[in-house]
This record gives sequence, C-alpha cells and structure tokens, in this order.
Amino acid sequence: MVFVGFGFLMVFLQRYGFSSVGFTFLLAAFALQWSTLVQGFLHSFHSGHIHVGVESMINADFCAGAVLISLGAVLGKTGPAQLLLMALLEVVLFGINEFVLLHLLGVRDAGGSMTIHTFGAYFGLVLSRVLYRPQLEKSKHRQGSVYHSDLFAMIGTIFLWIFWPSFNSALTALGAGQHRTALNTYYSLAASTLGTFALSALVGEDGRLDMVHIQNAALAGGVVVGTSSEMMLTPFGALAAGFLAGTVSTLGYKFFTPILESKFKVQDTCGVHNLHGMPGVLGALLGVLVAGLATHEAYGDGLESVFPLIAEGQRSATSQAMLQLFGLFVTLMFASVGGGLGGLLLKLPFLDSPPDSQCYEDQVHWQVPGEHEDEAQRPLRVEEADTQA
Amino acid sequence: MVFVGFGFLMVFLQRYGFSSVGFTFLLAAFALQWSTLVQGFLHSFHSGHIHVGVESMINADFCAGAVLISLGAVLGKTGPAQLLLMALLEVVLFGINEFVLLHLLGVRDAGGSMTIHTFGAYFGLVLSRVLYRPQLEKSKHRQGSVYHSDLFAMIGTIFLWIFWPSFNSALTALGAGQHRTALNTYYSLAASTLGTFALSALVGEDGRLDMVHIQNAALAGGVVVGTSSEMMLTPFGALAAGFLAGTVSTLGYKFFTPILESKFKVQDTCGVHNLHGMPGVLGALLGVLVAGLATHEAYGDGLESVFPLIAEGQRSATSQAMLQLFGLFVTLMFASVGGGLGGLLLKLPFLDSPPDSQCYEDQVHWQVPGEHEDEAQRPLRVEEADTQA
Amino acid sequence: MVFVGFGFLMVFLQRYGFSSVGFTFLLAAFALQWSTLVQGFLHSFHSGHIHVGVESMINADFCAGAVLISLGAVLGKTGPAQLLLMALLEVVLFGINEFVLLHLLGVRDAGGSMTIHTFGAYFGLVLSRVLYRPQLEKSKHRQGSVYHSDLFAMIGTIFLWIFWPSFNSALTALGAGQHRTALNTYYSLAASTLGTFALSALVGEDGRLDMVHIQNAALAGGVVVGTSSEMMLTPFGALAAGFLAGTVSTLGYKFFTPILESKFKVQDTCGVHNLHGMPGVLGALLGVLVAGLATHEAYGDGLESVFPLIAEGQRSATSQAMLQLFGLFVTLMFASVGGGLGGLLLKLPFLDSPPDSQCYEDQVHWQVPGEHEDEAQRPLRVEEADTQA
Repeated sequence: MVFVGFGFLMVFLQRYGFSSVGFTFLLAAFALQWSTLVQGFLHSFHSGHIHVGVESMINADFCAGAVLISLGAVLGKTGPAQLLLMALLEVVLFGINEFVLLHLLGVRDAGGSMTIHTFGAYFGLVLSRVLYRPQLEKSKHRQGSVYHSDLFAMIGTIFLWIFWPSFNSALTALGAGQHRTALNTYYSLAASTLGTFALSALVGEDGRLDMVHIQNAALAGGVVVGTSSEMMLTPFGALAAGFLAGTVSTLGYKFFTPILESKFKVQDTCGVHNLHGMPGVLGALLGVLVAGLATHEAYGDGLESVFPLIAEGQRSATSQAMLQLFGLFVTLMFASVGGGLGGLLLKLPFLDSPPDSQCYEDQVHWQVPGEHEDEAQRPLRVEEADTQA
Repeated sequence: MVFVGFGFLMVFLQRYGFSSVGFTFLLAAFALQWSTLVQGFLHSFHSGHIHVGVESMINADFCAGAVLISLGAVLGKTGPAQLLLMALLEVVLFGINEFVLLHLLGVRDAGGSMTIHTFGAYFGLVLSRVLYRPQLEKSKHRQGSVYHSDLFAMIGTIFLWIFWPSFNSALTALGAGQHRTALNTYYSLAASTLGTFALSALVGEDGRLDMVHIQNAALAGGVVVGTSSEMMLTPFGALAAGFLAGTVSTLGYKFFTPILESKFKVQDTCGVHNLHGMPGVLGALLGVLVAGLATHEAYGDGLESVFPLIAEGQRSATSQAMLQLFGLFVTLMFASVGGGLGGLLLKLPFLDSPPDSQCYEDQVHWQVPGEHEDEAQRPLRVEEADTQA
Repeated sequence: MVFVGFGFLMVFLQRYGFSSVGFTFLLAAFALQWSTLVQGFLHSFHSGHIHVGVESMINADFCAGAVLISLGAVLGKTGPAQLLLMALLEVVLFGINEFVLLHLLGVRDAGGSMTIHTFGAYFGLVLSRVLYRPQLEKSKHRQGSVYHSDLFAMIGTIFLWIFWPSFNSALTALGAGQHRTALNTYYSLAASTLGTFALSALVGEDGRLDMVHIQNAALAGGVVVGTSSEMMLTPFGALAAGFLAGTVSTLGYKFFTPILESKFKVQDTCGVHNLHGMPGVLGALLGVLVAGLATHEAYGDGLESVFPLIAEGQRSATSQAMLQLFGLFVTLMFASVGGGLGGLLLKLPFLDSPPDSQCYEDQVHWQVPGEHEDEAQRPLRVEEADTQA
C-alpha cells in the first residue's frame, strides 16, 4: 500500500510554499475521487454499480499524477477554483485517452510515459499557453527559490526517486515481470542522476551545479522507461535511456525553457516540459522501438503477460510498434485539444484568477503567519528575508 | 514493516522545533518498550515469559500513538521528566482499557477510533485541564508558527495521509477485510481533505485558507473511520463520514478551541480535540451504527472475521452495537480519570515544569545552535527572524 | 521495494545544505551502478554475463551505504571529483572485503556491522587523516548548524529509524529469521534512543539536550545489532546492546571527537566514528559473543539458515566465533589500507579540492539562489541570517 497517494509528491514542496503544497493536496484528493468515478464508468460499470478495489485505487493515483503534472505548468498563476475546474476536465479526458490506448488500441504503457507524463505535461503546457500573461514580469522577483525551499524540494526528489520503481511496476504482472520493471526503472534513474550531474556542471557558470537540474532532471530516468520498463529493455538499455533522459532534461532547463517562454509564449512554472514532456515522448518512442523488437525467444513465457496479443498470434511485433506510435499521437491530440479547451474555460471571469502582480504569492490564498503584525511589508516576506540575509 | 514506528509522525514536526520532534521521539521510544511489557503481561503472559512478535510490535505502536496524541495537548508546557511520567501512566491505562474493550467486551476497533484517538485525546485534555496555567499569556508570542515551520508540519501531514490506510488495516484480517479497510480509509481521507479546504475558505477572512486547518483537519477522515473501516461502511459511507469529519474538525479549530481555553480552561496546544477527540467520538458512534446494521447477507463469509461473535450466533447485531457504545463510555471514563490522576502527579514540584514565561521555548531543554554568540537575544530567536523579515 | 535506495538518507540533510544532499545523491547513484558491476564480477559472473535481480540491488544498496558513511567523514572538505574517485576505489574494496568475509571465511553479517559500518567508517576516517587540513580553522565558523538545518537532519533520523529494521532484515532468511532480525533491531533502536537522551542530558550544560546527539546516537542501536540481530540475541540482549551503543555514541560525540581532531589529526565532519565506527566494532564483537553461544537447542531448525556450517557439523560454535573476530580484523585492515591509499589518490592536484577557507561552503560547487543580487555578502549567507536573527 506504500504508493497510495504518493502521486502527491509530484510537484510537492517546490518553491512557492503553502500554495504549492496545499493545492497539490487539494487537487490530489479531488482527482482521486473524481477519477474513481470516471474510470469506474469506463471500465467497471456493471448493472448500475462501480467495482472498486486496489487496482482502481492505483488507477486513480495515476490519474491524480497526471493532474499534478499539469498543475506544475500553471502553478502560481491560477487560483483554486480554476485548478479544480482544470482537474474536473482533465480527469475525464485522461480516462477517455487511457481507455482508447489501453483497451481499444491494445497499447502497453505500464508506467505511463504516454498516458500520465506526456498527457499531463502537454495538457498543462497548452493550457498555460492559452492563459499566457504578457505582464508576468511584475511577479518575476517572486519566482526564484530560496536556500531552504530548495532543500524542501529535494525531499520530494529523494522520495520520488525511492518510490519510482514501485510506481512503474505497480500494475505489471506479479513475479518476473514486476522485478524486471523495478530493476529497469532503478538503473534508468541511477543513470539519469549521473547524466544530470555531468551536464549541469558542464553548462553551469564556472562548472558549478544548479539545484533545479538535480531536483528535476534526476527523475527523468523514471519517466523515460515508463512504457518500456516492463519490456525486455535490458539493464544496458535502461542505463542508456536514463542517461539520455537526464541529459535532455538538463539541457531543456538550461536552454529550452527560456525559448519556450519568449518564442512560444508558454510559461512553464516547474519546467514540466523538461521533466515530463520530452522524457515522456522519448519514453513512448523507446516503447515503440522495444515493442517492435519483441520476439518469442527473448520473452519466453513472459510474452503472455507483456504482449498478450502478440503471444496469441493476433498481432505482429511490428504492428504493435505502429500502434504504440499511434497511441502517442492520440495522446498528444487529446492533450492539446483538452488543454486548449481547458484554457478557454479557465479564462471565465468569475473564477478569480490572481492579478499579474500577485502571482506566486501565498497571501492571495492563505492566511500567512505573522501577517497581522505589519501588513504592508508582507507580500515580500520570503524574498526580503533572503535579501536581508 | 513500513508502519513500524510511524506513530512517530503524529505530532511530528509541528511548530515548536527541537522539543516537538525530540520529545516525540523520546516518548515513542519509551512507550514502545514499556507497552510491549505491559501488553505482554495482559495478553501473552505464559509461564513467566512474554511472547513477542510482529503483532505485539504493532500493538506497541498503537499505544505509542495514543501517548503522542496526549503529548499534543500538553506540548510546550511540560518538561521531559513530566512527559515520561505521563507515558508511564498512560501506557498502563491504555493497556487495561484496550484489554477491557477488545477482550472482555468483544468490541471491534481495528483502527482505534476509541482505544487510540478518543482515549489519547481525552487523557491529554483532562491532564491539560489539571495543569491549567492562567499566566500562559506570557508565552503567547511564542505560540504561533512561522512560514517554514508550517511547511515542516505539512511533511508530517502528507506522510500520515499516505500511511493511514496501512495503519487502519494493520491488524485486520488478511485479504478482503484488509482491502476493504484500506479503501474505506482512503475514501474518507480524500473526502475530509475536500471538506477541510471548503470549510477553511468559508470561515477564513476574505475566503483565504488557514494552514493549521489543512495540516490537521485533512487527517480527521482517517480518525473517523478507525472503528468502522473494516466493516461494510460502503465507499459512499466512507466519503460522507470523511467529509463530515473534515468539516467538524475545521469548525473546531476555528470556533471551539478558543472557547475550550477561555470557558473550560483547557489549553490544547496542537488542537488534539479537533483532530482526535471529536472525530474519535464520531468514529465510535459511526461504529455503533454500522455494527448495528451488520447482517449475514451483507458480509457473507467475511462476517466471521469482522464480527466473530455475531457469526457464531452468540450475539445479535443490536447487542454488538450496544457494547460498542458501552466501550466508548468506558474509554471516556478511563481517559478522564487517568488524565486527572496524571495531572495531579505531574504537578509534583521536583519534575521541573517550565515557568509560564518560558513555555514553547526550546532553550529551556536544548542547546540551540548559535546561542553562545549573543545570549541575550536568543529566547526570541525564531520569532524575531520572522518579525525582521 | 521500500528500502531501495534508502541508503541515501545516511548522511542525508545534515548541516551543509545543497552539497550534503547533492553529493549524497551523486555518490549513491554512482555507487549503485558501479557496485552492481563489481559485485557481479565477484559473485555471479557466468559465461560473460552478470546476473542481476532483487538481491543484487540490495547488495548494491548496502555498498552505497558504506560509501555514504565514508562521505560523512570527509564531507565539506572534498570536491565532487575527489568523491567520485573515492567511491570508485571504495566500491571495489568493499566488494573484495565482503567476498572474503561472507564467502571465504563464512562469517555472518546480515546487517553489516562489519562489512558496511566498520568498513565505511574506518575507510573514511583514515582517508580524512591523510587529507588532514591544519588550517581548517578558517572555515570553522561555517561548520555549525542553524535551527532549521537541524530540523531537516531530524527528518533523516526519523526516516532511518523507521526503515532500519527492514534494512537489517533485508537479506536474512524469510519467515522466523526475518521477524527475529526486525524485532531485535527495533528493540535495540528504542533502547539506544532512551540511552542517548539520558546521556545527552547528563553531559550537557545545565542538563540540556544536544540535537547532534539525538540525530545520530539514537541510530547507533541499529548499527550495533547489525551482525547479531539475526541470531538468538533475545529481546533483553537487544535492549542492553542498544542502550550501550547509544551511551557510547553520545559520549563519543561529547568527548572523543575533539580528541580525535586534536590528538589524532582526524577531522570527522559528521562524527561517523561515533555513529558507525565504535558501534560497528561493538556490533562485530557482540556477533562474536552470540555466535560463540550458538547451540542446536537454542536455534532448533533455524540454525540451518543462520549458521549453515554449524548446522552441517563442519564448524563448531567456537570456531565460528573466532572466524567472526578474524573477519573484524580483516575488515579493519582493508579499510585502513584502502583509506590510506584513497587519501593519497585524492591528493592529486587536478582533482580540484576546495581551499581551506572555502570548506563547508556551497558556493564553491553550486549556484546558490540569490547570489547574483549582492555577490560580496553571499559566502556568509546562511550564517549571517542566523546571526542577524
């Protein structure tokens, strides 16, 4: 039961204090319940009843994970009412997309490179594009981190790192399949951590490391093997994939995020494009490759549990690979259209969006301790403490 | 083995730094050992030997949980010698109360709504009443939280949230019963989180949320299903119970805690009455209701493991419900008398209680880093840092 | 899968912020991969392939644990290139030492009192001796903790405390043996926590507690039963051993660490000698004692899994005890020679060791948030914040 609710830690304890943690908690609790209902209707609706169990809990967890990834893209620029509306829509689309992929197309995606990471990231990014704020510069001084908040974020990183092997293997077949999934994820994570450190030092000023890279890119290895970790990826394949993901993700933080904002007008608060978007797409493509190479010889009896349709002779490895690729395309379509639609909905005026000058500011939504003492100074509280020091 | 010692996190990382964490750790380690002995004498004393095993570890954990709940009521106003004496007494009474309920009365209480939460809360509250300090106002300025300490407390909240389903289901029958318990707890927690957010915004100034509510009331859903989660509560019942618990608990923090202090002279440091007291009593009453509705049809073969006495025909559902209610009454009696006795004991002068002006102050018990530099300023250290900022 | 990578938390979140957490993460990821290869060659190299599985993951975790212990001795005085070279060497020696002990000598050491704690501690201490910096005084002002950093460290302590029983029992035989190991560890930890509190108050000024003792010495109970926890230690034996370990460790922090630096010229950043060195040696000796007392009567059928060579009649309990003692000797030899060699290697000039005045300073290796604002003040950032407050 360890992984129940661990999706919480996705955006967990990043830079913006109460709102980051609080809204993560709120969205997770809401998404868990709503997705239990939605997925119940899609998967296990029999004569007016929804069947719930451990598997439906895990599925709801995964869905909450996707919602929290999207939250990462819009964090700091949206109020709680907007976020709940976003979750309301995203959970439905997540359920439909997953149903299409896993049940209609027979795509394999145990750790959710496509259904969770790619979907969540691009849903959030397109939504963030629609909500683009040209005047966000006004809140720029509040967007950085402080020393202790970076340490808080590392708690989330370590926690996710430790539980990611369980996460990817949660829904795989028991026994050999589950061991393989966990081991592949583990090797990939270790390699992406090394890749991130190497790249971060290479691109940093004077060879110094950047905490943002370590916090995030070190986890890209878990994302990139989401689809393929239950397959015969081999330890070497997992190491290579993880190293690549860590590298790409670090380069994304350094070079691509600024371009994304200036050229594409996408303001990506937590850099979900680097941690979930690109590694998710890479993971889906890796899944295409590994599925295309599946043979009876390599899998033995395990083929039945990983690729049942190939084992039964209904489908060739090549057509499985094509369908995996088509699944990625479908996911990107659902995410883009859904994100666009969501963005328009979230622009509704009564949803109480924070003004441009009050983004990344807990005071708008929370009673911050100490604020009654000297109200005027409060909005700059955390930053000032840092500056004074 | 995950849940071993997780009772630690009960009061874990609240507002008062070293003492909160340190004394929690001390009391937990002491209570674990002492309750292993006490419960060994009560339950498994055969020919001079006590039999220990995984079950006795879990039982000792539960007992430590009750001690930590009581700690929450008196935290900041008691020294370590007082706390150890409190634990010495409470562990014995906990063991006797549990023995009376589970073995003599045949009450069911898997997650301990009665034996852990109600007992621990009212023991601590009565004890706090006896130790009432009219001059506590002198330490009032040290009672608030600061920005980072609230984030620390949220780590405890998230941790407890994640492990609560395992906690409630630790001692239930394996298989279907354990799954049902975990699922019910999970739904209840999710609903109480939503309820807490909604109520916190409703009662807050300008609709702003209060971190204290989120930290605590979001967990009330786990307390309220402590008795009934192994029973046929149904997901809808769990959701309703959780929502109610979150609501009641939030209202308690907002309106009842001040009354408790001004009218009833109970100074409840962490608000255990709101998180454990009221939800515990509600949970016990819910257990009465659900036990009264138990039928062979609803439980099938599972009746044997949940209500063995009903399954064997020795007891009707109604008499089980009456005994559950009587169990709540017994628990409240033990807690009140024990807490009163404990309070008198803790007033013994040689136990080194901190003076009224030095409550909630780490300096009394700990060597705080940096204090040698400028001794005069130290007692205000954390608060001043906040004020300066 | 919970304990995967939990070795991370060994030095986790101590006093020096980004570097502590970041380098722990880097070394762990590197050691996991490198030790999988090294141990693969030693243990499971068949016809050109290395066999990996859950057991090799746990073994790699244990090896990473030893590397992180050594890190604790040299933390703050070494750069990342030096640390990676240290890990490169230490992993190989760890593998050889473990192979000699477990496979050639038939020594039992389930929780690694010798192979992990003694080896890691003395390797790091000898290495730190070779790298002795007479001018370290220049960075002394940066060596203390601040209020919040001590709370961060307590998160690591609690986490390790909770998972230590799983850690010690990870590689023991399933069933009764695993339960016994976990219970013994648990009792020992609880007793060492009590012992630490008692001693810390006794030796502190005005009977006040020291957070450093609580953070570290409370865990010594887990180290001291590393060898003997799978044996018939009895709960009383575990309690006594834990209490002794907590006591010795606390006294070590108070009195021995200063002597170690002034007389033996060993600068032990995290006090690994107190938490891992002395308790590890004590644990090994305890293992000698308990192994020497092993009889068929006490173990019954369990003798087969704990001491297979005794059960098969190939070895007497006394000779097992002698070999355990010899194993400790071998471990100390490997650690000393390896640490000395490592220290000489780490002195190579191109490895970019931080200057004496820049030890314990994140700025050397990391881009610290906010530093662009007023560069001159930065190096004193955290300490100044504390001083101002």
